[in-house]
Amino acid sequence: MSVPVLLVLDADPPPRLGSLTGRARILHTDEAGLAARLPVADVLLVWDFTSTAVRDAWPGEGPRPLWVHTASAGVDHLMCPELAASDTRVTNARGVFDQPIAEYVAALVLTMAKDLPRTLELQREGVWRHRESQRVAGTRACVVGSGPIGRAIASTLKALGIVTALVGRRSRTGIHGPDDLDRLMARADWVIAAAPLTAETHGMFDARRFGMMQPSARFINIGRGQLVVEEALVEAVSKRWIAGAALDVFDTEPLPPESPLWRVPGLIVSPHMSGDTIGWRDELGKQFVELYDRWEAGRSLPNVVDKKRGYVPGH
Amino acid sequence: MSVPVLLVLDADPPPRLGSLTGRARILHTDEAGLAARLPVADVLLVWDFTSTAVRDAWPGEGPRPLWVHTASAGVDHLMCPELAASDTRVTNARGVFDQPIAEYVAALVLTMAKDLPRTLELQREGVWRHRESQRVAGTRACVVGSGPIGRAIASTLKALGIVTALVGRRSRTGIHGPDDLDRLMARADWVIAAAPLTAETHGMFDARRFGMMQPSARFINIGRGQLVVEEALVEAVSKRWIAGAALDVFDTEPLPPESPLWRVPGLIVSPHMSGDTIGWRDELGKQFVELYDRWEAGRSLPNVVDKKRGYVPGH
Repeated sequence: MSVPVLLVLDADPPPRLGSLTGRARILHTDEAGLAARLPVADVLLVWDFTSTAVRDAWPGEGPRPLWVHTASAGVDHLMCPELAASDTRVTNARGVFDQPIAEYVAALVLTMAKDLPRTLELQREGVWRHRESQRVAGTRACVVGSGPIGRAIASTLKALGIVTALVGRRSRTGIHGPDDLDRLMARADWVIAAAPLTAETHGMFDARRFGMMQPSARFINIGRGQLVVEEALVEAVSKRWIAGAALDVFDTEPLPPESPLWRVPGLIVSPHMSGDTIGWRDELGKQFVELYDRWEAGRSLPNVVDKKRGYVPGH
Repeated sequence: MSVPVLLVLDADPPPRLGSLTGRARILHTDEAGLAARLPVADVLLVWDFTSTAVRDAWPGEGPRPLWVHTASAGVDHLMCPELAASDTRVTNARGVFDQPIAEYVAALVLTMAKDLPRTLELQREGVWRHRESQRVAGTRACVVGSGPIGRAIASTLKALGIVTALVGRRSRTGIHGPDDLDRLMARADWVIAAAPLTAETHGMFDARRFGMMQPSARFINIGRGQLVVEEALVEAVSKRWIAGAALDVFDTEPLPPESPLWRVPGLIVSPHMSGDTIGWRDELGKQFVELYDRWEAGRSLPNVVDKKRGYVPGH
């Protein structure tokens, strides 16, 4: 085979691809140019992981890349039936975001327990008002999603003394199956959504489930916006069915200025940044080059997504 | 001895003293009445630990209590030379605040690393602005104060993967002596003040020491306000000698509305609440009753303060 064509779907060029010089012919494309270039690509790097252009362009005419890598943990934005049915391998950025997201969730849990948003408000008003805050040690968390991100969240929360249960697609050692979810949510102080977006998880956090939570409990989503029925969450927080929530991901991103989610008291909104710590782009670039090295050498790839399930299957 | 007189200096009556009925004659007093009642008291419970009335009243005429207990970790507010020179035993609330304060410090560290105050500001403005945040794992903390509170902070930060050094009054296994402080502060990402207020620690965090810190580093004080030269900290944060700070304690409390500390960008102000989690008053009441049980039975008391040093000596 001649030098493979590496097509990169990007807004900003990825860092760290320098070592591929001479080993790949690198073509950059934006969303509009993707369909025309797909047939010439051996490898597709989905660097702009907010784009859904792959899903739209894939079903078109002509040959398709042998391998697609996305610089994200989730693959929901690129999967389509034609890609799932094809021989193309899909890999993801498994591993890069685990610890950063776990720290971010710990930050949200502690911030809410210690009432820091209110402290910052009172500071702005110049008002000294002592309040009692909450211990986190001894509280209960239910982490939904048993992949590397969910497991990293669980370890970090456990290190803070939080009694943590993990819920996955099927029950196995140390992980609860879906049948336990309602029971665990009903007694949790913290419910954390860290599942991949699939047909099964779409809209799983709905009015029924929020209604089941304790009034003192809080909900955090760092997975995908579509896991949550947003109107149901707005109602649950506004009506104090639950004590608060924090969303880092949304059905529509960027969250439109007119969205009511910006202005629900007790709801923290952040701009899909939970895993993005300084150096994250370098990490993602480095990870892709490592995979490319293996692919070029004909070795097996790690992080291969089960395209039917929509995630990398665990042990 | 007839039923001992227990004098309680309080603003709100302490909970959990019910079990002392018949075993102590309980007198309540406010600050103004303290001097007149001190001579009749066998035991003094300083429940209002914000008061400096003991320090003022103690040098007066007449007999003095055999035992003084303060519902606080610090004893700086009640110590005076006459009390220090007396035979009166002083005990403190050692243990009650350790874990709550450790969680609070973790909340501040994570909040600052993840830029949550800015996230909340942007949410108020309805602005979606992605930023990169910081990992805490692998950063370095220097915790100044090697008592139970400092040690609890160090364990919690270590559990988050933060490389943590403890600095105490003298070097011993696992604890650095004061000679290492400047060097440790100069390379720390987080400097946490958790020392008792004594003649040696008064004003120890001054312009020289803030000038020594890294521009990316942050300072947290959950000990006593007087550990810090407040004007020097305002200058250090305002001029970006350091990246930020969080103060839970102040030279004057409540912090006066006109204090410039309320309005320094990058400085978080909270109202002396780091250790005060739900149930803390019950904990403090229960702890005093346990000590009273021992005192009444003539057994040795734990938590006895070295009155010359101003804290309970460690191992």
